Amino acid sequence: MTRLRVYDDTKALFHLPDGVIYLDGNSLGALPLGVAERVSRVITAEWGNELIRAWNTAGWYAQPRHVGDRIARLIGAEAGSVMVGDTLSLKVYQALAAALDMNSSRKVVLSDTGNFPTDLYMAEGLIATLGRGHQLRLVAPEEVEAALSEEIAVLYITEVDYRTGRRHDMAKLTAKAHALGIVTVWDLAHSAGALPVDLAGCGVDFAAGCTYKYINAGPGAPAFLYVAPRHADNARAALSGWMGHAKPFAFELGYAAAGGVERMRVGTPPVLAMAALEASLDIWDRVDIKEVRARSLALGDLLIAEVERRCPSLKLVTPRAHERRGSQVSFAFEGGYAAVQAVIARGLIGDFRAPDIMRFGITPLYIGENEIVRAAEIIEDVIAGEVWQRPEYQVVNAVT
Amino acid sequence: MTRLRVYDDTKALFHLPDGVIYLDGNSLGALPLGVAERVSRVITAEWGNELIRAWNTAGWYAQPRHVGDRIARLIGAEAGSVMVGDTLSLKVYQALAAALDMNSSRKVVLSDTGNFPTDLYMAEGLIATLGRGHQLRLVAPEEVEAALSEEIAVLYITEVDYRTGRRHDMAKLTAKAHALGIVTVWDLAHSAGALPVDLAGCGVDFAAGCTYKYINAGPGAPAFLYVAPRHADNARAALSGWMGHAKPFAFELGYAAAGGVERMRVGTPPVLAMAALEASLDIWDRVDIKEVRARSLALGDLLIAEVERRCPSLKLVTPRAHERRGSQVSFAFEGGYAAVQAVIARGLIGDFRAPDIMRFGITPLYIGENEIVRAAEIIEDVIAGEVWQRPEYQVVNAVT
Repeated sequence: MTRLRVYDDTKALFHLPDGVIYLDGNSLGALPLGVAERVSRVITAEWGNELIRAWNTAGWYAQPRHVGDRIARLIGAEAGSVMVGDTLSLKVYQALAAALDMNSSRKVVLSDTGNFPTDLYMAEGLIATLGRGHQLRLVAPEEVEAALSEEIAVLYITEVDYRTGRRHDMAKLTAKAHALGIVTVWDLAHSAGALPVDLAGCGVDFAAGCTYKYINAGPGAPAFLYVAPRHADNARAALSGWMGHAKPFAFELGYAAAGGVERMRVGTPPVLAMAALEASLDIWDRVDIKEVRARSLALGDLLIAEVERRCPSLKLVTPRAHERRGSQVSFAFEGGYAAVQAVIARGLIGDFRAPDIMRFGITPLYIGENEIVRAAEIIEDVIAGEVWQRPEYQVVNAVT
Repeated sequence: MTRLRVYDDTKALFHLPDGVIYLDGNSLGALPLGVAERVSRVITAEWGNELIRAWNTAGWYAQPRHVGDRIARLIGAEAGSVMVGDTLSLKVYQALAAALDMNSSRKVVLSDTGNFPTDLYMAEGLIATLGRGHQLRLVAPEEVEAALSEEIAVLYITEVDYRTGRRHDMAKLTAKAHALGIVTVWDLAHSAGALPVDLAGCGVDFAAGCTYKYINAGPGAPAFLYVAPRHADNARAALSGWMGHAKPFAFELGYAAAGGVERMRVGTPPVLAMAALEASLDIWDRVDIKEVRARSLALGDLLIAEVERRCPSLKLVTPRAHERRGSQVSFAFEGGYAAVQAVIARGLIGDFRAPDIMRFGITPLYIGENEIVRAAEIIEDVIAGEVWQRPEYQVVNAVT
């Protein structure tokens, strides 16, 4: 398998519309050219011709595990430790349920106010269902380390903050958590495909992530769940569906969990979405995530320098230190919502996150220096020219 | 919108491989011809060109509700009462969690041994998570009515038995359940698209179903959840993801459920799979489910008569009475596993369900009398000719 050079070889493997600079691949990755053909083949040749037989003949049944192994390589996970399916909300739920079960004498889930809200909402729902007096404790991101104590059952955080791009120190926090008897659940939504992750090296217990952001597998693409091999045969599957049964096709009346991470499967896997994910991984299999990271940091530095030089009213909220940031650059600006609408109207797609964050994702597979400089020019036009104050950019859309 | 005649107009709208008689549409429906183009358009024109903007411009965000309304018509549900997403395992879990919450002073979930195992497994998992002493009580299907009592919290059953095709009387059981203060959860896996369902008329509380069987939306297509409008603003969302939040894009730290069935959304919807479902519904929008049902019963009668005449060793396990059966015909046969392998090798695709059931699904949109008679001939060849006893048909595959 020939190695692909990041950007130089990979940009041509994506469809990007003319006249658009896309700095929102941290929300929905761009379309790999191989996706349409792959999905079409699965529809026509597998579903159409093989019909039900394709569960065996086309390998649909084993696909969530095989695709999991391809993702494992990107996140430093052991082979056989990653299962694909469902959505990230459901995967963090499964992880948290198993983690709380492992540490049942403690009642506090520690998270931070920079976690993505769905993680917090799912935890609230789980805590209510458990009805055993658990508490979801939120602290500021910079206070997480100090808040670790022997009272905490589970450390439940997202490595990279979806708004600011601030990155937690996974190795350090996991080690301190373990020293205090805390089980760890890491959300990799803004890590997988963005930067090297070393789950095995850090000794992480559980992790989950999505594939529609940096991995470029398409809107609503399936999520993944990592369970450390040392836990996989014992972790309780709270969402105990038939695909995670030890013998799904024996149709027994009683549940018996499959061995390993297989038990974290729930229902029938989304075969068409999985095909798109496989096509996106065809690119990831051939790039070096360390090269992606080096380019991401250089491009991020360039964007920061260009925007700060041109727009002093934008306040950088992403850490400057390389080791403390993910693969996005965010600025706080009071008129942020309107400014994002205005830059989008000029062909620069970024996004807005409440209350005042203008967010720009760096995806080196298809974004290079020219795009970054052009993005800074557009931001300058909108901010310095006060374009953002025009009435048409104040209208709030349903979804941003 | 011109009405389509079942089979006469609809058969040409499906891809069916040459030389195959497909009586397994109750497991995975055949491919509607419109799917490949629709999915391809969503990939290229929406994801590819619109990128993140498509959540608004292509209507992705509102799609689970709009598609739910198209399914509502097939199952006698009120507009705005059906939400699409996730898998059937997860949707019955959400329904059962909400139902138990509504009836929290009672602790017994009543189901039957004919329920599909994943429903039972998910209930086991929920009961363990709840940890409040709930009990899953299983009775034989014919004993369900007598087992209803004021001790039961939730009646949790599948209308049509996946093995035998036996159908419960939804109106009668729901009425008796309600008279005893029991909340009802109906699984429509083998009902939706197979026969007319009248959720509103029966006063059902919760229902869920899948779309990859009779609805023909493809492998791993999304499921749906019905919540009676009288409950929708109060039902607890146990899987409280951000898409079911009252204001998902406010990114608040605390959960607040959306009004109505919207709260039963969990994570990001599977847009590519939803496109396939929409293409399959383009056919369903134009057929009369009552005509589908009339044809299904006639074809089922024909298959029963032809097989019984040719193969006296096969014992019919599907009820003969029309009102007591779904849209499949099943026979018990000691060598059932091998016999199914042998008929498949001769071009008749049916399936096997443990311990001894040969199962043939009737899908009148693309199956007619000729296919039924030809199927009976193949079954006769295999059974009367003792072809099923050949060694090559005894080998057990991973998935059947």
